[in-house]
Amino acid sequence: MKKNAFYAQSGGVTAVINASACGVIQTAKNTDLIDKVYAGHNGIIGALREELIDTSLESDATIAALKHTPSGAFGSCRYKLKSVEENRAEYERLIEVFKAHNIGYFFYNGGGDSADTCLKVSQVSEQMGFPIQAVHIPKTVDNDLPVTDNCPGFGSVAKYIAVSTREASFDVASMCESSTKVFIVEVMGRHAGWIAAAGGLAADEDNDIPLIILFPEITFDQQAFLALVQAKVDKHGYVSVVVSEGVKTPDGKFLSDTGLTDAFGHAQLGGCAQEIASIIRSELGLKYHYAIADYLQRAARHLASKSDVDQAYAVGKAAVEAAVEGKSGIMMTIDRLSSDPYEWKIGETPLEGVANVEKMMPAEFISEDGFGITQACRDYLLPLIAGEDYPEYENGMPKYARIKGELVEKKLSTDFDI
Amino acid sequence: MKKNAFYAQSGGVTAVINASACGVIQTAKNTDLIDKVYAGHNGIIGALREELIDTSLESDATIAALKHTPSGAFGSCRYKLKSVEENRAEYERLIEVFKAHNIGYFFYNGGGDSADTCLKVSQVSEQMGFPIQAVHIPKTVDNDLPVTDNCPGFGSVAKYIAVSTREASFDVASMCESSTKVFIVEVMGRHAGWIAAAGGLAADEDNDIPLIILFPEITFDQQAFLALVQAKVDKHGYVSVVVSEGVKTPDGKFLSDTGLTDAFGHAQLGGCAQEIASIIRSELGLKYHYAIADYLQRAARHLASKSDVDQAYAVGKAAVEAAVEGKSGIMMTIDRLSSDPYEWKIGETPLEGVANVEKMMPAEFISEDGFGITQACRDYLLPLIAGEDYPEYENGMPKYARIKGELVEKKLSTDFDI
Repeated sequence: MKKNAFYAQSGGVTAVINASACGVIQTAKNTDLIDKVYAGHNGIIGALREELIDTSLESDATIAALKHTPSGAFGSCRYKLKSVEENRAEYERLIEVFKAHNIGYFFYNGGGDSADTCLKVSQVSEQMGFPIQAVHIPKTVDNDLPVTDNCPGFGSVAKYIAVSTREASFDVASMCESSTKVFIVEVMGRHAGWIAAAGGLAADEDNDIPLIILFPEITFDQQAFLALVQAKVDKHGYVSVVVSEGVKTPDGKFLSDTGLTDAFGHAQLGGCAQEIASIIRSELGLKYHYAIADYLQRAARHLASKSDVDQAYAVGKAAVEAAVEGKSGIMMTIDRLSSDPYEWKIGETPLEGVANVEKMMPAEFISEDGFGITQACRDYLLPLIAGEDYPEYENGMPKYARIKGELVEKKLSTDFDI
Repeated sequence: MKKNAFYAQSGGVTAVINASACGVIQTAKNTDLIDKVYAGHNGIIGALREELIDTSLESDATIAALKHTPSGAFGSCRYKLKSVEENRAEYERLIEVFKAHNIGYFFYNGGGDSADTCLKVSQVSEQMGFPIQAVHIPKTVDNDLPVTDNCPGFGSVAKYIAVSTREASFDVASMCESSTKVFIVEVMGRHAGWIAAAGGLAADEDNDIPLIILFPEITFDQQAFLALVQAKVDKHGYVSVVVSEGVKTPDGKFLSDTGLTDAFGHAQLGGCAQEIASIIRSELGLKYHYAIADYLQRAARHLASKSDVDQAYAVGKAAVEAAVEGKSGIMMTIDRLSSDPYEWKIGETPLEGVANVEKMMPAEFISEDGFGITQACRDYLLPLIAGEDYPEYENGMPKYARIKGELVEKKLSTDFDI
């Protein structure tokens, strides 16, 4: 007997999370066991509120266009379910909604927190006598999920940062004689330095670009940093600094935590890039510029990595295939078979080993001085940014999908307060 | 008798200034009157120091690849020659160097300041009995040169800001239920709001994106701005703000000029984006994020506008053709014949009317409330971002040209202090 499936996007969105949605919806359509795919409006909040988007009412063209549309088309959220012990009511509400809509499959597309939720849904539904096949679809620009070789979303942000750092470095190189000598770009990654590491790809055999990378894994050593900046400027005339938002000072505080207040007594907003710029100006007196990539980096579908798009789609597709085979409590993984030539396949892993585990950059990926990447890191990263997968353009602008987002009629008489 | 040509890049570089260089060098090769093209190493400074790059020693492939390489391949500089009255020695030095190297053609690729220099070279060389055909090739991301319909370099930065604003807005839209409600992106344009205006293209008939644009031409009205932010958040759940770095407060100061000092007494670095974020947080209490595009926007060759690339090449080509026809003291212009379909041709204009004149956004391009663009502005901008012109990629990264940059042997025994 056919059951419906529930799909939700969780946490920070990416350039390719909709490609996973596309993989889920297109694959579900071709199974004998899944009737409709309902997507959570704004993620898991949509399930709690019984706000379910009926994806069968979207055109095939719209669903196909999700593959090249950034962001979370159905809405995502930053909402972490508490533990079952703390708030069993939330899980019971989920199962109640799923039961009301005959949902037998739960696909959760997110990072570490959502892997935990996915596991709990699998367990609680079993306990409540309404077993749901719960499969986690990995997604995070931070690339910090364990077991899987890499995470969909990361390859595209890595490509964006690598390309942007190369381009800006070309710019600075051509002006440094009489203008900016230090260019700083602040990138995402509060705990793990994967995105910062990708900046290292700006330089290669054919592109002798002086780079310094500041990783969250390495405590900021101001003196060593300043000495390296000066040395690179002396040698090359300029230097590009890629700084992770998560860099910390020896006292364990974020570098961006300046502790300043403005004229009205409000804490002064700051970022790592400004702080680095400020230090360079005061200690070295060098002319600088800084960029903060912020959401531009994770939304940049215009420069997506083809590897990343393919893998995002593949994990969505494989999640559906695993679920209809009766699997539950697992996360789909990307398993690397070979780096050169790049070969990968989709695998799976029990969620118990995934939930709430963060994968940092291994020590052998960071150069001995702590300010760069090693060849091993390059070998790991390069396949992930391989290939281009441009969206279609119309009148000079990318054509991204917009869903209608029609909600399924509610069946429960109760509301649920978030 | 054949003479050599001198070409130099001036001021802030762009994604397509090398396409103009390519147009100059390839066209010069096919004329009967020009022998070699010497490029100034780091712009006009290279001429003053007699550091001339012999472009004939670069391969045809390298010269061709300049068309898709961002930045200034020969080096640019921020160095404004003083007036002839103030520092005639500089002009005499230029002519001396040009005479020594049998240079009869001077192509200067830059904005308003360099147009002035180009005019002076034309005049002083005449006065000194060594007349040089001096032709100015327009370039500026700021799009603020007069007479020409638009400036090479602008179309690509406009496309980058339009696309990036659309992409980031999709991101914010999908998260705003439980996360960021105001996204701010700071863009270039200290005097003219052309780049900020391009952010307005993020929204269109098919993309109902709530936008607010802050132009340098419009004094910042904090109350009106905050009211509009709140109204858009109430209606759409979020808003994207595109703020020009040149926005000024009613007292005539830059919005970014916070007047704060840090713990060491250094003036606190700030930007418009942070200042806007700070105001939104303190006055409205809304969750925000901000990006500062900085050099990423003007270096983003990966997302160049095809119109822009074509025009950058065309003005370089036309400059050479005009010079060998004996023309001097002119700037090549882009003349719009029709917006829809877009048709343009290359024209020319005397430099007297160009030098040191800035073209601001006309009032009819800014919406009545001062926070958006009009249909007339859209009609103007859209052709300039039309078409994609992707660089070639290798191993996931764009292949940009690097020149050998071999210098011509010096002929003068004197140095020149900059």
